[in-house]
Amino acid sequence: MSHPSLTRRRRRPFPFRGTALVASGLWLALGLGSAQADEGMWTFEHAPVAQVRERYGVNLTPEWLAALRAASVNYGASASFVSERGLLLTNHHVALRCIDHISSATRDIAATGFVAATQADEIRCPGDSARVLVSNEDVTATIVAASAQAGSSEVRNQQRKAAIGQLEAACTSSTGLRCEVVTLYSGAMYQLYRYQEWDDVRLVFAPEYQAAFFGGDPDNFVFPRFALDAALFRVYDKAGQPVRPAHHLRLASTPAKEGDVVFSAGHPGNTDRLLTLAQLTALRDVFLPLQISSARAQQAMLHTYSQRSPEAARQALDKLFGTENWLKATLGELEALKQPELVARKAADEARFRSAYAQQGLAGDPWSDIAAASQRQTANAKEKWAVAFGYKTLFAMAGDLVAQAYERQMPQGERMADYRDAALPRLERRLVAQVPYYRDLEVARLTQVFEQAQRLLPADHVYLRASLGGSTAPVAAERWLRSSRVDEAEVRQQLLKGGVAAIEASTDPLIQLARQIYPLRRALVRAEEVQVDTPVQRAAQALGQARFTLNGHAVPPDATGTLRLTYGRVAGYTSNGQATPWKTTWGGWLARADSFDQRPPFNLPPRIANSRGSVDPRTPLNMVSTLESIGGSSGSPVVNQRGELVGLIFDSNLEALGGSYGYSEETARSIAVHTDAIVAALDKVYGAPALAQEMRQGR
Amino acid sequence: MSHPSLTRRRRRPFPFRGTALVASGLWLALGLGSAQADEGMWTFEHAPVAQVRERYGVNLTPEWLAALRAASVNYGASASFVSERGLLLTNHHVALRCIDHISSATRDIAATGFVAATQADEIRCPGDSARVLVSNEDVTATIVAASAQAGSSEVRNQQRKAAIGQLEAACTSSTGLRCEVVTLYSGAMYQLYRYQEWDDVRLVFAPEYQAAFFGGDPDNFVFPRFALDAALFRVYDKAGQPVRPAHHLRLASTPAKEGDVVFSAGHPGNTDRLLTLAQLTALRDVFLPLQISSARAQQAMLHTYSQRSPEAARQALDKLFGTENWLKATLGELEALKQPELVARKAADEARFRSAYAQQGLAGDPWSDIAAASQRQTANAKEKWAVAFGYKTLFAMAGDLVAQAYERQMPQGERMADYRDAALPRLERRLVAQVPYYRDLEVARLTQVFEQAQRLLPADHVYLRASLGGSTAPVAAERWLRSSRVDEAEVRQQLLKGGVAAIEASTDPLIQLARQIYPLRRALVRAEEVQVDTPVQRAAQALGQARFTLNGHAVPPDATGTLRLTYGRVAGYTSNGQATPWKTTWGGWLARADSFDQRPPFNLPPRIANSRGSVDPRTPLNMVSTLESIGGSSGSPVVNQRGELVGLIFDSNLEALGGSYGYSEETARSIAVHTDAIVAALDKVYGAPALAQEMRQGR
Repeated sequence: MSHPSLTRRRRRPFPFRGTALVASGLWLALGLGSAQADEGMWTFEHAPVAQVRERYGVNLTPEWLAALRAASVNYGASASFVSERGLLLTNHHVALRCIDHISSATRDIAATGFVAATQADEIRCPGDSARVLVSNEDVTATIVAASAQAGSSEVRNQQRKAAIGQLEAACTSSTGLRCEVVTLYSGAMYQLYRYQEWDDVRLVFAPEYQAAFFGGDPDNFVFPRFALDAALFRVYDKAGQPVRPAHHLRLASTPAKEGDVVFSAGHPGNTDRLLTLAQLTALRDVFLPLQISSARAQQAMLHTYSQRSPEAARQALDKLFGTENWLKATLGELEALKQPELVARKAADEARFRSAYAQQGLAGDPWSDIAAASQRQTANAKEKWAVAFGYKTLFAMAGDLVAQAYERQMPQGERMADYRDAALPRLERRLVAQVPYYRDLEVARLTQVFEQAQRLLPADHVYLRASLGGSTAPVAAERWLRSSRVDEAEVRQQLLKGGVAAIEASTDPLIQLARQIYPLRRALVRAEEVQVDTPVQRAAQALGQARFTLNGHAVPPDATGTLRLTYGRVAGYTSNGQATPWKTTWGGWLARADSFDQRPPFNLPPRIANSRGSVDPRTPLNMVSTLESIGGSSGSPVVNQRGELVGLIFDSNLEALGGSYGYSEETARSIAVHTDAIVAALDKVYGAPALAQEMRQGR
Repeated sequence: MSHPSLTRRRRRPFPFRGTALVASGLWLALGLGSAQADEGMWTFEHAPVAQVRERYGVNLTPEWLAALRAASVNYGASASFVSERGLLLTNHHVALRCIDHISSATRDIAATGFVAATQADEIRCPGDSARVLVSNEDVTATIVAASAQAGSSEVRNQQRKAAIGQLEAACTSSTGLRCEVVTLYSGAMYQLYRYQEWDDVRLVFAPEYQAAFFGGDPDNFVFPRFALDAALFRVYDKAGQPVRPAHHLRLASTPAKEGDVVFSAGHPGNTDRLLTLAQLTALRDVFLPLQISSARAQQAMLHTYSQRSPEAARQALDKLFGTENWLKATLGELEALKQPELVARKAADEARFRSAYAQQGLAGDPWSDIAAASQRQTANAKEKWAVAFGYKTLFAMAGDLVAQAYERQMPQGERMADYRDAALPRLERRLVAQVPYYRDLEVARLTQVFEQAQRLLPADHVYLRASLGGSTAPVAAERWLRSSRVDEAEVRQQLLKGGVAAIEASTDPLIQLARQIYPLRRALVRAEEVQVDTPVQRAAQALGQARFTLNGHAVPPDATGTLRLTYGRVAGYTSNGQATPWKTTWGGWLARADSFDQRPPFNLPPRIANSRGSVDPRTPLNMVSTLESIGGSSGSPVVNQRGELVGLIFDSNLEALGGSYGYSEETARSIAVHTDAIVAALDKVYGAPALAQEMRQGR
């Protein structure tokens, strides 16, 4: 597996993220061609109905689209309802966060797997929520009008954020739904999305980590692949009853086979297809190398920590997986961006778009404006990266506690976007969730955060003075964490309730440090909003107009973590002259373990090793399709043209990332678990025939 | 599979052949380093005893070496005795020539496989022979002395060839053995090799082509791999009794496993490690592109022919396999040679060697002499290639019949080297062998030979005037072949016996055409001997002296189709970050077929498909090791440090060829059939437990 799941996005606080930069269709980028391949992550409101009809002769009716949307769930990354009793299918690696939270030294669910024998045995995931997109409204005109006046970038930034906050608040109060404004095409379009949200999600089934992530990091992003990367949850309503979704996906009566036309709905995190050459260059030369070096340092730290003991390895598992997954993906993207032919092609496309733009008689030079903004952003890149609190560390929790207290006192137009009203409920849930922290691990992680800052900042930087106070990084980390109680959910709850007063009265060392850092972080975030985001949004509006004039909505917006539809077909491929099949089989899985003499990470959990004889070796296990997927797509259902479930996306191949092989549209593939394998596993391996039955019957 | 087998060498009439150019150790090329990795194809007379002891702590005794040599058989490519009753193990793709010769429209052994139920059922392979190297003698001094006098290159060439002929003749008449002088280090060393030879070789066992070449061209040179590329023959003496070899390889009591130190003895055809930069450049820019374009044309022709009918496909099978195998290998070599870092490294090594050469106070500039010779060779490359008779075509047979008649009238110093006395017995056997020719296929092949000449030669070239006579290529080919009877073995026998008189009296159109072409071909071959080979040999002597002074025999000579020893270990590898196991399994084979839904070339013969249940799926099928292998190594036995048989080399991976991935010493691997799979196949699949027993017991 796997995509850096959507939740990883915060870790990379740049609007210029690189995931799946080169997934197919990148060089449609500027929209001067019409869609030729199966590329594109389309919004449901501008679904590729005509393209699908033309290419595959399949008619996507409004009812078909509405049903798939209603079954598609945002659960951190992607998921789908698969029974009328709220059964939710996603990847094991998406479930890993919950598994981490509900495990302990004496209950290692990653190692043992989990099957809830009855509904009563299902385990609630602390802090987790799931939501479904219910409806949408184009609010571009409102937002553009609110901030169209001449004025400083500063003023326009405030006006825009205030307008967004008002729209969201009005929507939520009138509908009772969770409402969020989504910025598409970097600001050329705004959609108000309305969600139904549930905050009671319970684990129902998870295979062993080693079954889900068989082959480990070496096999990640590789096909042929052998991984049962699937898990089941059940979503409950406030009354503690299983949610009855408006639609759930039925298991296909005919399993997927090569050549089938397929579709997928999910929540891809970021793409960069509509970025300009200047932005891509900044990504290649500044942001991706920064992220990679950070990921490498984290990887080394987590490996070292894991070697302390089996329990330490258990504690670090989710984080290590996430870091290595992210690292491998980012390396692939950087490799792709370094290929001269890609850059040349991008330059040619941009030249064509510039000429079309000029022919439309449009004013200004949005490309230069974006380039200037991009330059300002790169100038601050290291500082902004260093001052981040460390992804999901306890220090980051302290930082969020401090920031939310101060920010919510301000009008929405003044706040950092992460703390606007619409974003607060999720943040609060996360802040008070009863999840385990491990003091030693936190010390190691905070040490790494400080050491990174030392590498990136001048020695006398205020951040270093505040956080290190003249000590070494390990000593400082130990000092801030030793007597901190931010790891206790009750303490966080009190700080959350107590507002600024509680924060300012706190003597907790970590809160004190977060208080010191907060103004610096706020200044950096605000500066980027004003100096980078706002000019880019204005330029993007100009580009967007030109693009819409040329193509209507034939070019989908870059991914934004919101619901998207993709289409394609089940298909093997040839890469470097090597024939790669469309699927792998259960028998092939056992054989791959045998071929490595069961040496980790190619060892099988006992239940899988013992499945020879009980599971038909010809059972399809994983399969590839031309469906696009990137970080956040993990857990997306694959459906056939009747809208029936046939697979579960969990990864893409290296060719889809770019990578050292040279990119080819012919070879970019998503990798999915075939539903036959999921059902066979429940039935024959995990002793969960009732769940297999629930999937087959939908109830 | 598979290496262009040794027999393919004639097809590429250049001393600069490229196979396995970049196999590990290439850049030891000029011998300034000592052997560090498992590289090198060593002669038995200068076996790497010290290197193996140092690296692996294994002591290769003279007895160990003598035993392995005595069991190692040259059978077109490589093979080994595996029982005291003359049972010979080699690859199916080495057996394919014999299978082609003994098959017919009603007996398709490639399709059905073959098992001789009893010794009486074994089928003799027409024209085939097998031989074992019995002893050797360094004759460098004699040959160098014979041609050391000042004189024209023409004179030196004659003197050298005469000296070689005399040595060979004296040896054969005194020992009764087959004696051949081998030119090593391009002429810095000459060895007289004495062979015992048998000309009665009979097919005992062959699986179906589809079992042996499962995955076809797409999987060729790929690992993980799944191919039962093995066949058994039995060698008989003149009395019709099975040969009792001086030594045969015993099946290892402990099968091969990862990390085992292993050895291999075989007959690698050509390497180019000691070539100078100028020669490599000529290879890259002239010779390899020429060979590739020729192979592509042949491939297209054979594909078209194969599509006429299943019977046509059967007729063309061996040739199509050989052509595609050769093409894929040559493309890999060219790709490697195009990598700037390889050329840069080679240049640096050459500069170091030049400096060491100068420090030894040696005279002359051998590099410039070789560069000049190389330039002369490239100037004639197209003409020489075009005027070749077409590899193994009926036209080539006619050409050989004509040439041998004229050449054997001359003193040996005057003849083309292919027709010196020592080479004639094999040639004669081949000329009179009762093998099938297919008129339509020959017309298609000769058409392609003529069309190639049209592409390579000026329109008024004497070759084109003679062969086409103003017609199109297909019309001319049809005309020469229509009434020719060269396809009849009896006719060839009469022409062979009748000498020049019979040749000159012949009214056979193909013989008449060969008579017309012969003087032209002779002139081109002689010109190359005088203008290219002889100056290169003289320069090579100078380089060889310098090299021996520096390293003794720590750098093995380039491969020459003669017996070589290699060492290494069984080891998986990581290529482009992808983990590749050291072996594949029988279960993995069935799974790979399943994963392609048994679509050709991934379909299994019924016997293999039905082996589920009878053969343990964990049985090792193929395995990789760091042993070096190239064209001609096919069929080499893999033995453990006790000299026991553990595998059968049939291919190398793409990484060993170079290829588009960038070459890495870490990833170059030979691919072998694991002996467990051979024995299991005989026992459980092909109903040949007696043969399995003969392999296990050695009798």
